[in-house]
Amino acid sequence: MDREPFDHIWIHARVATFDPRVTVPCGLLADHAVAVRGDTIAAILPSNAPEVQSHRGAVTDCGGKLVTPGFIDCHTHLVWGGSRAAEWEMRLAGVPYTEIAKRGGGILSTVRATRAISEGELLQTAVPRLRALVDEGVTCVEIKSGYGLTLDDELKMLRVARRFAIVESIDVSQTLLAAHAVPPEFAGREDDYVSLIVNEMIPAVARDRLAEAVDVFCESIAFTVAQCDRIFSAARAHGLAIKGHVEQITNSHGAELVARHGGWSADHLEHLDDAGIAAMAKSGTVAVLLPGAFYFLREKQKPPVEKLRAAGVPLAVASDLNPGTSPFASIRLAMNMACVLYGLSPEEALAGVTREAAKALGRASHIGTLEAGKRADFLVWDVTHPAEIVCQLGATPRAERVVRGKASNA
Amino acid sequence: MDREPFDHIWIHARVATFDPRVTVPCGLLADHAVAVRGDTIAAILPSNAPEVQSHRGAVTDCGGKLVTPGFIDCHTHLVWGGSRAAEWEMRLAGVPYTEIAKRGGGILSTVRATRAISEGELLQTAVPRLRALVDEGVTCVEIKSGYGLTLDDELKMLRVARRFAIVESIDVSQTLLAAHAVPPEFAGREDDYVSLIVNEMIPAVARDRLAEAVDVFCESIAFTVAQCDRIFSAARAHGLAIKGHVEQITNSHGAELVARHGGWSADHLEHLDDAGIAAMAKSGTVAVLLPGAFYFLREKQKPPVEKLRAAGVPLAVASDLNPGTSPFASIRLAMNMACVLYGLSPEEALAGVTREAAKALGRASHIGTLEAGKRADFLVWDVTHPAEIVCQLGATPRAERVVRGKASNA
Ligand SMILES: [Zn+2]
Ligand SMILES: [Zn+2]
Repeated sequence: MDREPFDHIWIHARVATFDPRVTVPCGLLADHAVAVRGDTIAAILPSNAPEVQSHRGAVTDCGGKLVTPGFIDCHTHLVWGGSRAAEWEMRLAGVPYTEIAKRGGGILSTVRATRAISEGELLQTAVPRLRALVDEGVTCVEIKSGYGLTLDDELKMLRVARRFAIVESIDVSQTLLAAHAVPPEFAGREDDYVSLIVNEMIPAVARDRLAEAVDVFCESIAFTVAQCDRIFSAARAHGLAIKGHVEQITNSHGAELVARHGGWSADHLEHLDDAGIAAMAKSGTVAVLLPGAFYFLREKQKPPVEKLRAAGVPLAVASDLNPGTSPFASIRLAMNMACVLYGLSPEEALAGVTREAAKALGRASHIGTLEAGKRADFLVWDVTHPAEIVCQLGATPRAERVVRGKASNA
Repeated sequence: MDREPFDHIWIHARVATFDPRVTVPCGLLADHAVAVRGDTIAAILPSNAPEVQSHRGAVTDCGGKLVTPGFIDCHTHLVWGGSRAAEWEMRLAGVPYTEIAKRGGGILSTVRATRAISEGELLQTAVPRLRALVDEGVTCVEIKSGYGLTLDDELKMLRVARRFAIVESIDVSQTLLAAHAVPPEFAGREDDYVSLIVNEMIPAVARDRLAEAVDVFCESIAFTVAQCDRIFSAARAHGLAIKGHVEQITNSHGAELVARHGGWSADHLEHLDDAGIAAMAKSGTVAVLLPGAFYFLREKQKPPVEKLRAAGVPLAVASDLNPGTSPFASIRLAMNMACVLYGLSPEEALAGVTREAAKALGRASHIGTLEAGKRADFLVWDVTHPAEIVCQLGATPRAERVVRGKASNA
């Protein structure tokens, strides 16, 4: 053999594989080694395996530290212009939403600010948010459009997201969310705006490969099921995947629609009913839980976590990072809130930002767990128990971040 | 004059002074300069004042950025050994507290772990927590003992806290909290343990100047009002200040006791009644709100914020950083939760970690606001509106940290 089978081995690790075939909590393997070749995991082996002992290449001794898959934040709106802090201050002071909207607040204020700035400025404002996620261990992030609401401004947002994929050591999954709100110039002509999405935006995005999926805000205050159905049909016709913001404020049966279209994920789900759960279970659609918005909006109605779990619906957790309802650039805060507010176990929260989040982005075949053949994206933690990663916030116990087989300090 | 009146001027700042004499929100002064001499604020002046124009020393142009006082975290337990993450996992899974205690959980598990390690190890485990606070803009932190519960182990914790004051660029206010829990060796002999605190610990701490204040956990599951009264009387006899963990789980009338002794602060206060509020208002005792524990323990009963506000009781906000009930090394998370969970305004949250927190540590005469004569501890933020500091988490918009008149990257 003219080449070593492995380029780099991380030895003496406690490997939380999240591999479902390893039927212990977190798929945890004591004193194992992660053997990497190129950007891929070549093998997960006991530290004393002959292949490990005979390895002559690079070795990192983890000294018993915990290794987890890289984190995947599968639902963010992290590209935006402006600030909604003053609006939040009004909301806390009891100013009603209608009055806030009258004074220029709400999603449309972010749309105005996002349209007003250039692609370069938009990139610059988003960099600290992306870096905060990277710094916590995120190795793959989904980024939605949805604050442009014109063809040009939606494409501008998606180009910013694509540039991140190039300049930062992170995977980006891009989503067209033109159906986030009805833009002011289409007020009263919602179906015309849907036609614009269907006839112009989706074809343009598909042609330029600027998104992998199409998302909608299916809600009484946004788009109807019939309108979302048109959008999803167009998306599928162009080979794009489907996902939806559904049942956040009311039960609009958007989850069933997403499931009917074979969608990757249905997100929020506070008002999801049994029919929606059954439809998601049947289609394999992931439930993406977004406790940050639940917390920030002081909601009372929680998503039906126990029923989703009982039905075998995969549970993912995401930050929902956005300026108005979840201004938190922290996947660890989202995990903590998923446990405290929604009753997930720390293991479920960790699976929710690794294995299950990978499913929510259609990437389960190559990221989300630590197995031979998966991409070598993983995190080394100076903790003894996986729950410590979820329990504490602020101080980070992370020792190393490995992306595509290369150690990275970011 | 043979010397410049100022060493360094931060010019063109929007200065959130929190000076109560500046009667606009946050005491905000547009386009002002912070003029520093030595470690002290020499003057806050309009940017175009003659003294600013004629200054020949160092100048930092803030370019319209916001300047706030350094943050003060006035209630933490940040020195501890061990981890309580596994206990949290059990609690989330529904294991009752009595069973968790039987399996060795609770405060006493942290006491065992803290006793078992050396002063040097204790320091090392606490460093990342302190750095996380420093990194968010904290320039003064209170640190309590309370996981030693022997004379030697309590002194060990307080020496660690004192070493932080020396090695990190941060002010530390040290508090003896020997009355945190009854140590196992005194089970059934609580009054004997109180005698140990009164007769040995308080005199030793006062003699070695290892604490400025004495704290208690006055609660049905901890120490009675009569026991706390003995401890407070001894503390005052030794010239130490008074504070208390009170009315967190039940209304034990601890706040009235703290007020009667002229205490600096009464902390938690979820079950505080009108008599307690009146007593605190009369004595000028600060109400320290700890929403992290409220969130993490999934409490329902909130402290009577509106009544405290109406009675003119100063409201401070703190992290309560501790391993069991508020494992969050983040003053900004505490501020955000104070708004979302307790209904403070962002301005009140900011005042709660600056001006009011200084009162809670008996330091209002030299930190907490930006005024001539106060210490030059301040933060420069790349935001337009003070609420942005409270609204967003994760990405930090902080541009600079100035401690005792010196710019610091920490
Ligand atoms: Zn969203
Ligand atoms: Zn406390």
